[in-house]
Amino acid sequence: MRTVTLTKESTKDILENLLKRSPSSYGKYEMAVAQILDKVKQEKDQALFGYTKEFDKADITAENIKVTEEEIKEAYDQVDPSLLAVIRKALVNIRTYHEKQRQNSWFTSSENGTMLGQKVTPLYRVGVYVPGGKAVYPSSVLMNIVPAKVAGVPNIVMCTPPGRDGKVYPTTLVAAREAGADVIYKVGGAQAVAAMAFGTESIPKVDKIVGPGNIFVALAKKAVYGHVSIDSVAGPSEILVLADDTANPHYVAADLLSQAEHDEMASAILITTSTELAKKVQSEIEGYLKVLSRREIIEKSLENFGYILIAEDMDEAIEAANEIASEHLEIVTANAFEVMMKIRNAGAIFIGEYSSEPLGDYFAGPNHVLPTNGTAKFFSALSVDDFIKKSSIVYYSREALKEIHKDIVQFATAEQLTAHANSIAVRFEKEDEGDSL
Amino acid sequence: MRTVTLTKESTKDILENLLKRSPSSYGKYEMAVAQILDKVKQEKDQALFGYTKEFDKADITAENIKVTEEEIKEAYDQVDPSLLAVIRKALVNIRTYHEKQRQNSWFTSSENGTMLGQKVTPLYRVGVYVPGGKAVYPSSVLMNIVPAKVAGVPNIVMCTPPGRDGKVYPTTLVAAREAGADVIYKVGGAQAVAAMAFGTESIPKVDKIVGPGNIFVALAKKAVYGHVSIDSVAGPSEILVLADDTANPHYVAADLLSQAEHDEMASAILITTSTELAKKVQSEIEGYLKVLSRREIIEKSLENFGYILIAEDMDEAIEAANEIASEHLEIVTANAFEVMMKIRNAGAIFIGEYSSEPLGDYFAGPNHVLPTNGTAKFFSALSVDDFIKKSSIVYYSREALKEIHKDIVQFATAEQLTAHANSIAVRFEKEDEGDSL
Repeated sequence: MRTVTLTKESTKDILENLLKRSPSSYGKYEMAVAQILDKVKQEKDQALFGYTKEFDKADITAENIKVTEEEIKEAYDQVDPSLLAVIRKALVNIRTYHEKQRQNSWFTSSENGTMLGQKVTPLYRVGVYVPGGKAVYPSSVLMNIVPAKVAGVPNIVMCTPPGRDGKVYPTTLVAAREAGADVIYKVGGAQAVAAMAFGTESIPKVDKIVGPGNIFVALAKKAVYGHVSIDSVAGPSEILVLADDTANPHYVAADLLSQAEHDEMASAILITTSTELAKKVQSEIEGYLKVLSRREIIEKSLENFGYILIAEDMDEAIEAANEIASEHLEIVTANAFEVMMKIRNAGAIFIGEYSSEPLGDYFAGPNHVLPTNGTAKFFSALSVDDFIKKSSIVYYSREALKEIHKDIVQFATAEQLTAHANSIAVRFEKEDEGDSL
Repeated sequence: MRTVTLTKESTKDILENLLKRSPSSYGKYEMAVAQILDKVKQEKDQALFGYTKEFDKADITAENIKVTEEEIKEAYDQVDPSLLAVIRKALVNIRTYHEKQRQNSWFTSSENGTMLGQKVTPLYRVGVYVPGGKAVYPSSVLMNIVPAKVAGVPNIVMCTPPGRDGKVYPTTLVAAREAGADVIYKVGGAQAVAAMAFGTESIPKVDKIVGPGNIFVALAKKAVYGHVSIDSVAGPSEILVLADDTANPHYVAADLLSQAEHDEMASAILITTSTELAKKVQSEIEGYLKVLSRREIIEKSLENFGYILIAEDMDEAIEAANEIASEHLEIVTANAFEVMMKIRNAGAIFIGEYSSEPLGDYFAGPNHVLPTNGTAKFFSALSVDDFIKKSSIVYYSREALKEIHKDIVQFATAEQLTAHANSIAVRFEKEDEGDSL
């Protein structure tokens, strides 16, 4: 892990290095993904069965593509009851937090007969993608399904690739059922995204597709965007710890490593005003590395995207944090709440020395699907907002329209849109007869 | 304008025909746009000056790319004072409506020391694109700038192409100043989008680009999406009128034509339970066509994308309206508010016979930047929501984390993320010593 003095230049260099991790440089797979999308669009189910045989080595048919009640029951039998209890506790917290995000339809009205407002409607059908493979993340299943459920989405469809035995990993099924998935299909990869975007005989077309996935899944989501909605395409995980000399280096180092272990592209950055802390964190990291099971991944990600930045003062440190706009930001300083008030850009902000980042990954309630790669400057965590849309509501009485109709006619005429002007004018042509509009 | 009996099949055919208007079929310009983006990224200002000479035939330099206070003063002298008065009245309505959309940061807390919430922050810098050419739409300037301003965006940058004389159309400048643009640059097309996405010597990089434009602008916005945020790529305008035998055919026809005049790709659809009304609207349209100035455009758009659909009953009509998910939906029926309650998908809903669609384009207050091409199933009108982002806030005291730390360790361990588990465990290693976690 490099230690660098924080300057405008070093911040710029770091930002450029981090942006190398952007998924936009994966163009070479685009053609393969486009072919998969096309084939599913044309051949529907048949294409899904073929790709599942080819990529997942599993025999899927119209009869077994949908996970059955029996399979879900089996899954419950296989999951450790104490893990199920933890999942249920986490679920309560996640649901409680997301319920606070619900938005109401609203209107304003006036006595001469105008009503304006917004009607909030949940999306009708949402598709949640859940990756397969050895690494199973039930937390991710909860985080993607709960906001849709809380938003009131009546149809939540999930797709996940089967193993060679044609089965879905039991923890995934249990998490999906607990969170509220309505139906689960055994199909993965770009072909699953295509199925949810266009619809097949077995899988209905959805309005929005969310959930993490490999590069094929990410490119497929990007390709179908506009035809359906998608969540933002997530990049590698990031943590930025903002710390002064009050921070505990043993904890800071552990938290940096918690994100570095995700994958070799993950980034862990400490910005501190204390050279003393910087040294201690470096040495703590070396200590942990000897015992942590994912040592190889951690070493690679720290080498490529890990930094310890020494700042002149806290204001400079905060400014750099705002520039970097990290997915996760921990504030471990004196007056941590005051520092938080100065943070403009971060996916999630963890305040104080006991708000360790993994608390947010699993348990506290806020969503762990967060903007990465500097996009916290303009994107937000996955939330209930992602599963609703708003229709404007406009009502004007005759009296109310009459009062302003000449203004509208003048505005439309200035824009040379005469049929616009006409549609207002015809409603008052009798009383305006003889007027020069 | 075709008259068709409404069935599931006819609805499907119409949807397929409307989707032909999707901008996703403009792939052939993508290469040209990619070249422009690349050149601006590399050569910055020089590329802008070159393209402006090439495409707009105007000489723009570092000295005159920014609109001066003097130019704005000149513009005010040239705009009809009565039009300015109308713009100001509209602005008050638009601002008042959008102010209702403001969202608060919020938190919940518990006495054992947990605080969870969302911190709402406006985007820092937003770019608004305004098309040039003969058609000048000051209403569009207002609709794109006001929500950003109300959201609290401190830096609103506008780009618009100059005429051959190097000037911007005066109404555009006046509308921009009235709405609250902070700085205006004379550059248009894909090159303007590139400048705002990457930054040049003259034009600062922004966080989000909004505003309508031609196919080059739309493709450029799509290409930079992810690097910055964008509004949704708008398709051709649409109106759907839902009417029964209580509707006035003279008004209904005028409203259909108000959207049909936008361009040849615009779509105007009437769904009615009354064959009598259908006939009368058809004949009214023929009457209007004789007198409206944009007759040629209207005839083409009606021929290609205009429909009168006869429904069995209102429920069937409503179901088709939800399937079509029109940008603008007028409800001109008995019990119009009750019909509104059954509408799931529409960009903006106009209720009753005096809520003519152009009222919303100019004056009532709701935004006229609306989802098109069926995307009202998952997208919303441009709003204050588009110019804020939310950071999750997580605070746990030692006591609060202690209570649940073993749950998190178990969850992380089940996901084989041992460094995640470690970061929680190290905070309680003394008291847990001897425990088997």
